[in-house]
Amino acid sequence: MDKNTLHFYLDKLAGLDFHKMYNGDFFLTWEKTDDELAAVFTVADALRNLRERNISTKIFDSGLGISLFRDNSTRTRFSFASACNLLGLEVQDLDEGKSQIAHGETVRETANMISFMADVIGIRDDMYIGKGHTYQKAVVDAVTQGHADGVLEQKPTLVNLQCDIDHPTQCMADMLHVIHHFGGVENLKGKKVAMTWAYSPSYGKPLSVPQGVIGLFTRFGMDVTLAHPQGYEVMPEVEEIARANAAKTGGSFSKTHSMAEAFRDADIVYPKSWAPFAAMEKRTDLYGKGDTAGIQALEKELLAQNAQHKDWTCSEELMKTTKDGKALYLHCLPADISGVSCLEGEVDGSVFDRYRDPLYKQASYKPYIIAAMIFLAKSKDPAALLQALEERATPRHLG
Amino acid sequence: MDKNTLHFYLDKLAGLDFHKMYNGDFFLTWEKTDDELAAVFTVADALRNLRERNISTKIFDSGLGISLFRDNSTRTRFSFASACNLLGLEVQDLDEGKSQIAHGETVRETANMISFMADVIGIRDDMYIGKGHTYQKAVVDAVTQGHADGVLEQKPTLVNLQCDIDHPTQCMADMLHVIHHFGGVENLKGKKVAMTWAYSPSYGKPLSVPQGVIGLFTRFGMDVTLAHPQGYEVMPEVEEIARANAAKTGGSFSKTHSMAEAFRDADIVYPKSWAPFAAMEKRTDLYGKGDTAGIQALEKELLAQNAQHKDWTCSEELMKTTKDGKALYLHCLPADISGVSCLEGEVDGSVFDRYRDPLYKQASYKPYIIAAMIFLAKSKDPAALLQALEERATPRHLG
Amino acid sequence: MDKNTLHFYLDKLAGLDFHKMYNGDFFLTWEKTDDELAAVFTVADALRNLRERNISTKIFDSGLGISLFRDNSTRTRFSFASACNLLGLEVQDLDEGKSQIAHGETVRETANMISFMADVIGIRDDMYIGKGHTYQKAVVDAVTQGHADGVLEQKPTLVNLQCDIDHPTQCMADMLHVIHHFGGVENLKGKKVAMTWAYSPSYGKPLSVPQGVIGLFTRFGMDVTLAHPQGYEVMPEVEEIARANAAKTGGSFSKTHSMAEAFRDADIVYPKSWAPFAAMEKRTDLYGKGDTAGIQALEKELLAQNAQHKDWTCSEELMKTTKDGKALYLHCLPADISGVSCLEGEVDGSVFDRYRDPLYKQASYKPYIIAAMIFLAKSKDPAALLQALEERATPRHLG
Repeated sequence: MDKNTLHFYLDKLAGLDFHKMYNGDFFLTWEKTDDELAAVFTVADALRNLRERNISTKIFDSGLGISLFRDNSTRTRFSFASACNLLGLEVQDLDEGKSQIAHGETVRETANMISFMADVIGIRDDMYIGKGHTYQKAVVDAVTQGHADGVLEQKPTLVNLQCDIDHPTQCMADMLHVIHHFGGVENLKGKKVAMTWAYSPSYGKPLSVPQGVIGLFTRFGMDVTLAHPQGYEVMPEVEEIARANAAKTGGSFSKTHSMAEAFRDADIVYPKSWAPFAAMEKRTDLYGKGDTAGIQALEKELLAQNAQHKDWTCSEELMKTTKDGKALYLHCLPADISGVSCLEGEVDGSVFDRYRDPLYKQASYKPYIIAAMIFLAKSKDPAALLQALEERATPRHLG
Repeated sequence: MDKNTLHFYLDKLAGLDFHKMYNGDFFLTWEKTDDELAAVFTVADALRNLRERNISTKIFDSGLGISLFRDNSTRTRFSFASACNLLGLEVQDLDEGKSQIAHGETVRETANMISFMADVIGIRDDMYIGKGHTYQKAVVDAVTQGHADGVLEQKPTLVNLQCDIDHPTQCMADMLHVIHHFGGVENLKGKKVAMTWAYSPSYGKPLSVPQGVIGLFTRFGMDVTLAHPQGYEVMPEVEEIARANAAKTGGSFSKTHSMAEAFRDADIVYPKSWAPFAAMEKRTDLYGKGDTAGIQALEKELLAQNAQHKDWTCSEELMKTTKDGKALYLHCLPADISGVSCLEGEVDGSVFDRYRDPLYKQASYKPYIIAAMIFLAKSKDPAALLQALEERATPRHLG
Repeated sequence: MDKNTLHFYLDKLAGLDFHKMYNGDFFLTWEKTDDELAAVFTVADALRNLRERNISTKIFDSGLGISLFRDNSTRTRFSFASACNLLGLEVQDLDEGKSQIAHGETVRETANMISFMADVIGIRDDMYIGKGHTYQKAVVDAVTQGHADGVLEQKPTLVNLQCDIDHPTQCMADMLHVIHHFGGVENLKGKKVAMTWAYSPSYGKPLSVPQGVIGLFTRFGMDVTLAHPQGYEVMPEVEEIARANAAKTGGSFSKTHSMAEAFRDADIVYPKSWAPFAAMEKRTDLYGKGDTAGIQALEKELLAQNAQHKDWTCSEELMKTTKDGKALYLHCLPADISGVSCLEGEVDGSVFDRYRDPLYKQASYKPYIIAAMIFLAKSKDPAALLQALEERATPRHLG
């Protein structure tokens, strides 16, 4: 069966059970079954297949996709906009600065007020430990209630565009890239993955990427190592999940304080800066108290702490120690590139340059992953709908 | 005839004269005939009926809906975006901060420059007494001239998204909610309505809601009471309109300085804070002069004045005095809820909670009211067009 | 052949060679052949013809048009949004303030990250000499590479929405207005054009309009005079282009330091303020060094320099000296109108008023010019596609 035909993907879907995704939401990858994740990958590939053959995948004639970004974003913002557009939804951004939300409005109320014609809500809220995921849950509870009470015609689907715990659209895109790179999910067993901290001159980057990676990559029978200097721990609950995943799939999850150890013979490396979990918790408290002096002191402290680990960088030397010197280098971008975007950073300029194309391809999966999450939540029979789109054969572009 | 079929609404439309709405605008409810208002309600219901049966109501294949918000907004912004999307228009926001308008451009010029492909312009401009309505009129004059002169292919329709005088999309949504709550417009005669001021710890809220309510609700044979502390008068011209409306429809319009009196036996209560008309006039002057010290002094004075009336709150005790203790509680949202969004505010938390679903339903009519205003301005034969949409039967969502 | 039928324009296209525009970009008018410019004018007219007959010109079922404005804009922003909407693309604005670009990201990376589903990128970057055009080139190089490397499914087309050198969408719209005003391009030979500096109380306006005008208008056999006070030179390279154009087409390009001389017997006048080229270069350097004091000193100096030339204004007296006292007055808007938007400015209020309709019509061509540039870059056979749209005959608006 040819990957260039849609039937390849329809056959894959036929073997998967994902019926619970209908009208569901996407918060954390570890809440989904293996079949459900496989369905997301397969629908993402199928949508890409259709688009690349100039076949429209609009399943909405009208409708809104609401975005709420509580942190700056280029990639995720454009990925969400692209995914909505691909399916026929118009993006309406909830810019909290332009809204009346400061004016004492509850989450429950705002969630309903923006959802009268919303099919999807995408939220990025990654800055404060213990907040982002909780907020997203509250939004879904509100619109679920609103739909049950007859206030909302439809329950919009939530897509987690990054929270304090997981970054599922990123990590699923990363994984789809890995799957294609290694020629199929069946080739991943036993591959060695190094998810490692790396030095950055900025501070306070979210933990959701390393957490998302160890929570997801351990499900494919791979040997995942999490490496970071002492003091840069991630959330212990997520480590537990990684450990349990590995046990189930015959892979492994280990930790080390040596970047070199993690890189040795690795098939995949993901060197990336993040803030220590404990510091992020402290910062969340300080913000809660409005303690500006405390926040500034903490920032200074964290930058000084970071600076002690400038040797945690993805250098050419380290890359040589990976499998055949050719591990697949991953990054969610933008990276802190030594000599390019900063003096000393996460990765050598020459390493980054060599992997530029694969990195951009990695990023290119995100719009399709988001679209697939929406598609699966909004279609009673996704395979039949994909087939119907193929048969409808509306050109995406007359030209 | 079943309300679940479109024919119920088409039959209603058949009995109404609204031909003057074609290519018209919507500034103030009292400029419209009873039939014209009935047409807006009916088309709003019809559009909702179609959408809830998954039938596309797109009458535009392309085209822009321009929004201009001179005040923060969530609900109205999303309602306008939803209405435009429902009909097939893409929203383009005129963000004055990002434009060159400060650079000495006239209203006439801006209005034409943004309208080359605009079918609708929605404006919220409610902050300064004597300004908002005047500005909206100037915009319509400009595009009417531009169309007559051959500059514009079409005259865009203006929808008043709140001015200094009226808030027609809000009050029409409120009224459609009331109509459905009481089982039809024919059941409203003799109902007692309390439009009353309520305490809020913020100040300077627009007068357009109380004005819009007394200007509209008096047209249905109801007994409307406007209650507020001394010094919180609304525009006398609008009171005149309310009085004249009541005289015509066999209802009444009265005023009181007692919230308790207004609530007694009321079928509908609408307790909501607003700023005194005279103070808003003064503030408009001070802004005009750029008198910052004067503005700050006025704000302080107004907050102190508000604080003398903390007893003006929609308490459980007051609610018990309404008709069977069960008056329909209305609010345009967001409300200042005592113990939730502020210490002491417009309404008790328990009252608000009990009415949450009806309040959200009240808000849910706004996108349809806006869409109906546009639909009536842009269709030569709205009933025939609704019928054609039903027959076209394009699914809003394949799923 | 009737101009009201599409065939008039299809016949025109049949005689032109513009096959190199397919998958191309639009940076500078002088990089395009005469046939290519004629194709843009013709397709713009054809798209307007279809839209005015209520025929949809959507050639995209979905897809994004990315906009990036590095300077405030109303007209160009709405023109780009209108053009994209007309063709079926949804605008997604890259607001650098809300993005992570400050965070050390390269142009190459950003360009690819926003382009996974982008068919068009429109950029306005006109503030710094030597920067805007270079930046636009870098973006196109990046996405061309991205497409070649298999990262991007399509190479988005760049439309220059104003750079430091040219403002092609403005000047092409100006020229299409001129063509229609004089009843055809064949009537332009020998017409006298005065592109002259005019006094404005603001400073630092881009040079791209005068440069774009002399670079474009000299291609039609007209006698173009560039007039400005000493010290207000434009880029010498562009003057060279104007001179070469004139030589080729039998027209002329001359320079003068007298506004009166330029206006005498002129058929077309374009009086408009701009900053001196040398001062803009200096400012670019100062910004590069972050020299705030230097920038402020320069601004003061430039305003003082401007103020020495308040007599450079398009007065009624000067207008009387033009051809029959009735030259066509052009401006890209907004103009600094004496007694309206400033005390003393570029043009008398009475002159501006008399030309208001033609000025607004001039502006009305811009959305169609932009749409034509996109159409020509995205259609293998534009004439056949226009014909297909006519035959498809989808109404733009049911009503």
